[in-house]
Amino acid sequence: MAATTSSYSITMRLHTDPDHGVVGQVATTIAEGGGIVTAIDVAESRHDRLVLDVTCSAADGKHSEEIVAAVEAMEGVDVYKVSDRTFLLHIGGKIEVTSKVPLRTRDDLSLAYTPGVGRVSMAIHENPEDVRRLTIKGNTVAVVTDGSAVLGLGNIGPGAALPVMEGKAALFKRFADIDAWPICLATQDTDEIVKAVEMIAPGFGGINLEDIAAPRCFEIERRLRESLDIPVFHDDQHGTAIVVLAALTNALRCVSKSLPDVRIVVSGAGAAGTAIVTLLLAAGAVDVVVVDRQGALSADDSSLPPAQLTLAQSTNPRRVTGSLHDVLAGADVFIGVSAPGVLKPEWIDEMADDAVVFALANPDPEVDPAEAGKRAAVVASGRSDYPNQINNVLAFPGVFRGLLDAKADEITVDQLLAAADAIARVVTDEELNASFIIPSVFHPDVTKRVAAAISGKHHEI
Amino acid sequence: MAATTSSYSITMRLHTDPDHGVVGQVATTIAEGGGIVTAIDVAESRHDRLVLDVTCSAADGKHSEEIVAAVEAMEGVDVYKVSDRTFLLHIGGKIEVTSKVPLRTRDDLSLAYTPGVGRVSMAIHENPEDVRRLTIKGNTVAVVTDGSAVLGLGNIGPGAALPVMEGKAALFKRFADIDAWPICLATQDTDEIVKAVEMIAPGFGGINLEDIAAPRCFEIERRLRESLDIPVFHDDQHGTAIVVLAALTNALRCVSKSLPDVRIVVSGAGAAGTAIVTLLLAAGAVDVVVVDRQGALSADDSSLPPAQLTLAQSTNPRRVTGSLHDVLAGADVFIGVSAPGVLKPEWIDEMADDAVVFALANPDPEVDPAEAGKRAAVVASGRSDYPNQINNVLAFPGVFRGLLDAKADEITVDQLLAAADAIARVVTDEELNASFIIPSVFHPDVTKRVAAAISGKHHEI
Repeated sequence: MAATTSSYSITMRLHTDPDHGVVGQVATTIAEGGGIVTAIDVAESRHDRLVLDVTCSAADGKHSEEIVAAVEAMEGVDVYKVSDRTFLLHIGGKIEVTSKVPLRTRDDLSLAYTPGVGRVSMAIHENPEDVRRLTIKGNTVAVVTDGSAVLGLGNIGPGAALPVMEGKAALFKRFADIDAWPICLATQDTDEIVKAVEMIAPGFGGINLEDIAAPRCFEIERRLRESLDIPVFHDDQHGTAIVVLAALTNALRCVSKSLPDVRIVVSGAGAAGTAIVTLLLAAGAVDVVVVDRQGALSADDSSLPPAQLTLAQSTNPRRVTGSLHDVLAGADVFIGVSAPGVLKPEWIDEMADDAVVFALANPDPEVDPAEAGKRAAVVASGRSDYPNQINNVLAFPGVFRGLLDAKADEITVDQLLAAADAIARVVTDEELNASFIIPSVFHPDVTKRVAAAISGKHHEI
Repeated sequence: MAATTSSYSITMRLHTDPDHGVVGQVATTIAEGGGIVTAIDVAESRHDRLVLDVTCSAADGKHSEEIVAAVEAMEGVDVYKVSDRTFLLHIGGKIEVTSKVPLRTRDDLSLAYTPGVGRVSMAIHENPEDVRRLTIKGNTVAVVTDGSAVLGLGNIGPGAALPVMEGKAALFKRFADIDAWPICLATQDTDEIVKAVEMIAPGFGGINLEDIAAPRCFEIERRLRESLDIPVFHDDQHGTAIVVLAALTNALRCVSKSLPDVRIVVSGAGAAGTAIVTLLLAAGAVDVVVVDRQGALSADDSSLPPAQLTLAQSTNPRRVTGSLHDVLAGADVFIGVSAPGVLKPEWIDEMADDAVVFALANPDPEVDPAEAGKRAAVVASGRSDYPNQINNVLAFPGVFRGLLDAKADEITVDQLLAAADAIARVVTDEELNASFIIPSVFHPDVTKRVAAAISGKHHEI
């Protein structure tokens, strides 16, 4: 059975016979069905019945239905209502806009709105650079998507992408005190996306591109970086690359290998894979082989589409060919940003000693982390229920905090490298081990260290 | 001297001789200079000096400089620093994004972000209408401008417009609990504005167009209403029209005249004037004459540009010609949305008995309200320092509250009329008089009555 996750947490309201022994029976029934009871409240106790609110976690939607059915089948128990905690949390959306200024009196209105605001507008008109100081622009990021590659869900469109973008905005606030707003675009045309972002840019201090499919994401980012005077950052690319490089840095510390010396195989040539490879090379990696569904990318293969050909030309120095299995033999590092189950556990035995395996496909990784852990020295995944979770939340809040603090008009590869280094260094030599190569997203230092690295203020720490 | 307004409030930090008598002397100096002292704090009292923080209002920037100079000239007083309350209030912007959900634990993250959010996205993908229930869309409004006609400041561009749009967003929250976000567009091309709004629309439940110059605002609104499935409302047009109709309804109650019977002269054929005329006609007005810089608009005049010709064809039934002064003779109502000082006070004497004068140009009206009050029965203006302030804050929060509550996909003329009627009715027969034709923006019933009128839920009040 898959691990239970709280995202499939449900709350059942039960009407039962007035026998308090039923509480234990319900808990037992849920446990026997593989659910985890997290709360039981007696909402009402009358002479003729009890009302219980029982909250439990299930593995997935089907599992939760089985649990409800098992409880429903109990004698003397009636399932009155089933609420889903995840959906309850999302009703009405997850973010709101609040005023930072008082609006209680006519006097307040005349300062914050007309006529007072007119003087502030004219000041900006006369000194355009004051817009960052006198408006929200200095602390705002647009979280822009076209809904074309949302999480692992694919092309579900801008409306269905909105809950994810809201969540991202909430994380920006929680981890970096940044005011981010979701912009879900009703287009998946590259030119239109570029134009739309260019047009909304005046009100924002940065652009976070999110869940835009490859290869169009590459062109969109490149063109926006050329045309805009605020930094543009595609988190699925560079956020992932930063955290992967940070984790790999520490994994190699664990196994006493050095980046220029190791053979690295990257499975997946999409947005994340491309950015990871680019950053690894910038960090000093030499022997990187990228594998997609057709096998190892090689510059010899003139049939590759443009994005892959570019990638192939900067990688695979030994011009190896063949399947993932073929090229994995002797490799020190596997980094998967591809698809569930593409890496068979036994192949890890054919890698070099002290192999490092990052299986980052979500929600189901390239190889079961527990299985991989029996054969590799260090294993990381995107999952929170295993050690070493590679989570972009470690990077993007601090990256934009640093960019906004520096009033940056762009972001450079050196800054990405500095951010990765900052995250890696949060884990001290004493803390570092094969099950702890990356800090928790809740580590209080992560955002500020990344921000300092990005803004170049290393010495303020 | 012009009235002092708090938007020109300043705070001076003074270093003075250690004589507490200086407090009174400073206050006297400011008062003699025409300033109004609103606060004096002794920040520090030492044997060798006092530190005073003195806050006062001035008429305008020049006046505040004169006051500072007068204080600086006092013996034993040194002006250490001058802070401007309006600018201090605007530093860092006036709105922020906050999370409505807890993000304290890994469990919280898995509900609000991955993996939990994926189920919510898939639910919306399968049932697109759920987007209003499960995301912010159900409570969000985009405040969209191109910066081409900002307040009375003209074409100052999108960056300089941002403080105004932020203020508007803050008012949306304060008065209607709506989450509004400023969108300041880097274009003033009609096609591009339409396209940009169409592309960002999926994340919003309504579009508030703001400070977009005529005549392009008419086409932009018309095209967006055709293409979008959410309501589009240009506040400079319809918000103003609603409040003007409400105020006129009550002004005519005061003078016992009826809308179909009165002669109305509207000065100004821009966005506001056009919308006011359209709504007045829909409400039953018959004899409306529009005057622009060239004089009365008449359908006979084939030299008029398209927007003005349309306006002329629905107005001026008596085909009058001539200047504002010419057509004002015998008129019952003057409504100015044009320029400072175009109405000479003595012309009011040539209007019909019990004349109604709305002088709404901002910040300087068509005629001084105090002068007009000597000759007209009812006078209104856009200013907060005279009775009967015509303020859009009375309309737009309730309008969008009602539209969002009703999950409306458009806004109709009947709804605009109902909103105006709702505002007018907030003023009871007992309260109504020539100096009180319109409720305060802080009246607790205004937003909910307007919202109910818009959403059609009259009976819930």
